[in-house]
Amino acid sequence: MDFASLLGIISGLALIISAIFIGGNADVFVNVPGVMIVVGGTMAATLLTVQFKDVLNAFRAAYIVFTRDKTNSSEMIDTMIKLSRISHRHGLLKLGDVKTDSAVLRRACNLLSEAASEQVIRNTLQNEIDSLMARHFSVQEVFRKMAAYAPAFGMLGTLIGLIQMLSELDNPEAIGPAMAVALLTTFYGSLLATMVFLPIAGKLKARTLMEVTNLEIIREGCISILTNDHYAHVYEQLSAYLPEAARKPITGGDKAKDVK
Amino acid sequence: MDFASLLGIISGLALIISAIFIGGNADVFVNVPGVMIVVGGTMAATLLTVQFKDVLNAFRAAYIVFTRDKTNSSEMIDTMIKLSRISHRHGLLKLGDVKTDSAVLRRACNLLSEAASEQVIRNTLQNEIDSLMARHFSVQEVFRKMAAYAPAFGMLGTLIGLIQMLSELDNPEAIGPAMAVALLTTFYGSLLATMVFLPIAGKLKARTLMEVTNLEIIREGCISILTNDHYAHVYEQLSAYLPEAARKPITGGDKAKDVK
Amino acid sequence: MDFASLLGIISGLALIISAIFIGGNADVFVNVPGVMIVVGGTMAATLLTVQFKDVLNAFRAAYIVFTRDKTNSSEMIDTMIKLSRISHRHGLLKLGDVKTDSAVLRRACNLLSEAASEQVIRNTLQNEIDSLMARHFSVQEVFRKMAAYAPAFGMLGTLIGLIQMLSELDNPEAIGPAMAVALLTTFYGSLLATMVFLPIAGKLKARTLMEVTNLEIIREGCISILTNDHYAHVYEQLSAYLPEAARKPITGGDKAKDVK
Amino acid sequence: MDFASLLGIISGLALIISAIFIGGNADVFVNVPGVMIVVGGTMAATLLTVQFKDVLNAFRAAYIVFTRDKTNSSEMIDTMIKLSRISHRHGLLKLGDVKTDSAVLRRACNLLSEAASEQVIRNTLQNEIDSLMARHFSVQEVFRKMAAYAPAFGMLGTLIGLIQMLSELDNPEAIGPAMAVALLTTFYGSLLATMVFLPIAGKLKARTLMEVTNLEIIREGCISILTNDHYAHVYEQLSAYLPEAARKPITGGDKAKDVK
Amino acid sequence: MDFASLLGIISGLALIISAIFIGGNADVFVNVPGVMIVVGGTMAATLLTVQFKDVLNAFRAAYIVFTRDKTNSSEMIDTMIKLSRISHRHGLLKLGDVKTDSAVLRRACNLLSEAASEQVIRNTLQNEIDSLMARHFSVQEVFRKMAAYAPAFGMLGTLIGLIQMLSELDNPEAIGPAMAVALLTTFYGSLLATMVFLPIAGKLKARTLMEVTNLEIIREGCISILTNDHYAHVYEQLSAYLPEAARKPITGGDKAKDVK
Repeated sequence: MDFASLLGIISGLALIISAIFIGGNADVFVNVPGVMIVVGGTMAATLLTVQFKDVLNAFRAAYIVFTRDKTNSSEMIDTMIKLSRISHRHGLLKLGDVKTDSAVLRRACNLLSEAASEQVIRNTLQNEIDSLMARHFSVQEVFRKMAAYAPAFGMLGTLIGLIQMLSELDNPEAIGPAMAVALLTTFYGSLLATMVFLPIAGKLKARTLMEVTNLEIIREGCISILTNDHYAHVYEQLSAYLPEAARKPITGGDKAKDVK
Repeated sequence: MDFASLLGIISGLALIISAIFIGGNADVFVNVPGVMIVVGGTMAATLLTVQFKDVLNAFRAAYIVFTRDKTNSSEMIDTMIKLSRISHRHGLLKLGDVKTDSAVLRRACNLLSEAASEQVIRNTLQNEIDSLMARHFSVQEVFRKMAAYAPAFGMLGTLIGLIQMLSELDNPEAIGPAMAVALLTTFYGSLLATMVFLPIAGKLKARTLMEVTNLEIIREGCISILTNDHYAHVYEQLSAYLPEAARKPITGGDKAKDVK
Repeated sequence: MDFASLLGIISGLALIISAIFIGGNADVFVNVPGVMIVVGGTMAATLLTVQFKDVLNAFRAAYIVFTRDKTNSSEMIDTMIKLSRISHRHGLLKLGDVKTDSAVLRRACNLLSEAASEQVIRNTLQNEIDSLMARHFSVQEVFRKMAAYAPAFGMLGTLIGLIQMLSELDNPEAIGPAMAVALLTTFYGSLLATMVFLPIAGKLKARTLMEVTNLEIIREGCISILTNDHYAHVYEQLSAYLPEAARKPITGGDKAKDVK
Repeated sequence: MDFASLLGIISGLALIISAIFIGGNADVFVNVPGVMIVVGGTMAATLLTVQFKDVLNAFRAAYIVFTRDKTNSSEMIDTMIKLSRISHRHGLLKLGDVKTDSAVLRRACNLLSEAASEQVIRNTLQNEIDSLMARHFSVQEVFRKMAAYAPAFGMLGTLIGLIQMLSELDNPEAIGPAMAVALLTTFYGSLLATMVFLPIAGKLKARTLMEVTNLEIIREGCISILTNDHYAHVYEQLSAYLPEAARKPITGGDKAKDVK
Repeated sequence: MDFASLLGIISGLALIISAIFIGGNADVFVNVPGVMIVVGGTMAATLLTVQFKDVLNAFRAAYIVFTRDKTNSSEMIDTMIKLSRISHRHGLLKLGDVKTDSAVLRRACNLLSEAASEQVIRNTLQNEIDSLMARHFSVQEVFRKMAAYAPAFGMLGTLIGLIQMLSELDNPEAIGPAMAVALLTTFYGSLLATMVFLPIAGKLKARTLMEVTNLEIIREGCISILTNDHYAHVYEQLSAYLPEAARKPITGGDKAKDVK
């Protein structure tokens, strides 16, 4: 469960709703045709713009934002160090028996146990990274497109309202409320883009960067295991992916004891 | 037939039209000179901006958006695995007899059957990919330019209307309707950009990315066939282009039976 | 003569002018101080921003947009195939006598006849491509800067008009016409950017891309001639630069007869 | 203590506050619900958009902007020259005993003293640079996102105020003050983005570029020490990182005396 | 003295000032607090955003825009050809005695006279180019930041004025002049960005590109001198940096006579 996402969406909606209630009558802000123009128009333009399978993937990804929290970099480094110890004690062949949730890590272990060359391991894992980035990018793109279409349909709705109001400008009393209704679609469009589509696109991108870092740790770790089997060197190589504050001293500690 | 594109354009137009009819008199929204300024101006500026042949290609491409649905990645991977089996059983030479709709795949098969080097195959197919991306990019660029010009001419039309209205500001009664007419071109321009030009540009880009992935699968598959003829390895190489969920187990299943 | 550019500029101006005349009094749209602020200010800021020689080159380039129509890719491929036949029959040395309008092609032929290495030919022509792109880019940049400055000076003119109108807001009758005059500079600035500067920058960029493709065909063709002198292989290499529909069958046809 | 940052924030706030007091009643500018919408909404959307640990790192980084001033490039070059003298007199092994605050420099010294190859040193330090840029980039991204969300929530607040004001447009007297309150959130959002979030993001980026330059000096210096141990050559290599005015003459001066 | 910059700034200011005087009372446009908000706020935010030394360098660079006019590409090519003749007649060693204003050219000559390898010369000069681009980029960035902050503070000033005007909307007579004063800061901010900051940033970028081209000519020229000492070949290599119209015939002319 991603606590930050949940806190963000709840506090954001609470703020907007309380701001509306503090200001007075809240029922002015409910306008079904306006919601339909903005939400429906955004969906229609998105269907026209992207592949249908990317739309489906996008909704699945939106669910992920709130529920799954990925393994972080330092855990992945610990995993690679465990692998380097296994390889150190029992040989590369033993890595073929390693059980792991990550399909990429399992594949990397298979390559190591088959004694693949550094070039093959590097190409295979780089290919996985590039293709993962391309796949995730097209999902994020769906939300970025939605974040662009929502305010555009909000403006189209406001223009429709304004043109109708101005063309029958007989009693000045009605101008205010008609303008309020016209502005509502702009409000809906901006709210959707700012509170929903842009944050989801941003969070998915952050997740992708974290996954890519993990895959890079696997790549560099495997090559380090292949060429230089002492775990301290592996750690030294991989610690570049950590901020300086999070790096542990290379020698000593209970990890060093494990090896003795 | 691309169902998503069709659904998108129909539902989008239905939403906008119903929003106009709900609001009252719909005939305010028909203004022939306004349509001429926006559509004609966008066409004129586009003709000035891009090569004439790209404009023709753009209209042909817009038709493609609604009708053609390309081979997807997993079918292309299956095709490459079939080729790897043919090569495995009958030798690379047999690949020269393969029949296929894709000109690039046929050419790749010819190169394989002529025993071209990995370097030649990689260069030839990379050249095809780069040149396909460049050609498709200039077609997408036509729609992106149109999506930029349409709102600009909408604003120019509104400015012309506003300036004329303001310069003869004698009876305040006429301000409203004149302003409504002036705003119409902004509405037309935004609608064209949001519902037509941007979605077509986006869909064409998505199609191009899919075609490029297919060409990359052909490239990597051919190299894998050339150097390492077992179909399981070919599949393992190419499965990087699939999301993890869509990857089939490497051994076993009815495919494995086929080979026995 | 570039028909599309001419058609674009004429139809675009006709549309704008007719839109002005349909709306009523057209003389409101003529305002000499406004034209001076927008055109003069744009020129002044452009002189400050770019090198003087680039401004001169930019005006020369604007003339080119309407008059010169470059050799297209398929003609350049035909030229390279002719060269490959000459080289095939008479040897590389004969290429030194080839007459051509293109300075780069002549230089490439000289390099071939001097039996330069593939590396030297590739570097020399890549250098020409990079340097041509850099030179043309700085010319296009002049028009892109103008397209950014014109609306900015339009807005400055409108601000000047608005501030003066608001500071002497004594009779409400004069507001309308004064506002109309103030809006005129915004209209001029947007019109210049949308109908003149952006299209010229776009067309010059399209021309540059076409020239670069031609230079790439020369580069790849020369290397193909150097290493592999049969014209069918040369055509196969270069056909990657053509869309699939424009590719001719590799063998047979009257070209094949020519060789027999 | 970063004097420029401090001067900037104090003078900027003083200017804005004095501008408010000169204009008259300053208490119009205090509106607690408005502050809550803009600040709270920006925080909520940021929590939704980025990883929680990046938000924490961002606040730590904001503190750094005012307090830490990094070693500059010419001091780092002097350090590398000292190291080259130590290596020249006592051998590469002696570099393992060097004491320094910079973890990366210490690691580079260890690699030198272990007689690592040029390739290993280059890869290790390039990896550090890439990973430092990626880590710092995601922190700067937090402030760039905040700088985008703050005006967006300012506009949402203004839209809420406008819609409520327009929907109950009964007494024209109240329009002015209500509009003033509605505009306040736009003011808050723009002020936060312009005076707080954008400057912090910019300063952090400038700091990162400076740190990267330092790491590049370490990388090039170490390779220069490894291959070419005279300090004058090391200085000549590294002086490319200094502006021409800051470069000292290569030979002579008290540094040259030190060696004799 | 850069004539174009001088002409640009003078004609631009003359246009704006005459536009103000033609419109009527010019003293409305003088507002000291408004100038303070825009100029002071821009300076404050810039100090917060960039390193202090970059601000100092930026002011020095702004002076350069009006005074220094750099050696152009064709002069630099002539210089390289002179060097190639010296090397041809007297040997590479003689290049060590060449006197020149350019520190980079002197260093390149030293490297040639020390018979450095092509790799060393290429790396050293590429390093100079990259580092010069990075240094100049951070100076241009100062003006680009100012060009972004000036309109932002202009808008903040206008918002302050609008909010104060609207909150005490008692006599409608005062609305016009108060609005005029509020709009002044927007005018100042746009004027500063459009006439001062953006042009300076653009000119500095154009200067940097010219310097980089010169350094590239030095790099390619030195390598050409090192490997291929006839001046005609050197010219042929370097002429790629000139537009086709500016290229002189390779053989013949008074230069050819010089050698005989």
